[in-house]
Amino acid sequence: MEQLDKMHCEACRIGAPTLTDEEIRALRTEVPDWAIVESDGIRKLQRVFPLENFAEALAFTDRVGRMAEVEGHHPTLLTEWGKTTVTWWSMKIKGLHRNDFIAAAKTDALYQAFDDAK
Amino acid sequence: MEQLDKMHCEACRIGAPTLTDEEIRALRTEVPDWAIVESDGIRKLQRVFPLENFAEALAFTDRVGRMAEVEGHHPTLLTEWGKTTVTWWSMKIKGLHRNDFIAAAKTDALYQAFDDAK
Repeated sequence: MEQLDKMHCEACRIGAPTLTDEEIRALRTEVPDWAIVESDGIRKLQRVFPLENFAEALAFTDRVGRMAEVEGHHPTLLTEWGKTTVTWWSMKIKGLHRNDFIAAAKTDALYQAFDDAK
Repeated sequence: MEQLDKMHCEACRIGAPTLTDEEIRALRTEVPDWAIVESDGIRKLQRVFPLENFAEALAFTDRVGRMAEVEGHHPTLLTEWGKTTVTWWSMKIKGLHRNDFIAAAKTDALYQAFDDAK
């Protein structure tokens, strides 16, 4: 399979099917550090990224946000002292789409690059 | 009283007293758009700032975060499509300090300036 972090999000329309449990199991092996959380009956991908302090968390939030703008797919980003929590899901289908796994893989790559640059 | 948004946060040490209910009532009149929320038994100031889209929410998050770094006092910032939720409290005293009201007033001023600049 092509690496997820090299792929791009595609347009997601209302009514597109959410992923099956089997598809989710297969995709999760590509982004093993992400948890699947459920809120309001919607499954989401979530990962907490540890960072040195508030300034670093803010910088990482900004980096992920800019990637999201490029992809046209948007997460929630919780910035706190020493960590940023990133949550991906597809609002239009109220669940997980392949886009969310692509975006999660891209977030992992950004974190790796962020860490390598220190 | 001097305008809160012109004041600066002071060093807050472990053991400093939290504000009394009376002090909170008086300070809240200066930042009427903020709610007092309680989580894990800790009172916090919280306001949701509506913004046009994700890019604006990210830009506002960055602006508030930079102010926080200058003040040496840090909130949590939840960035979503069309809104940023800002929450202030003083971790060292597990509650509300005058600093939180100063920071809330400064956040309001940033939002006003952000809106005026459009």
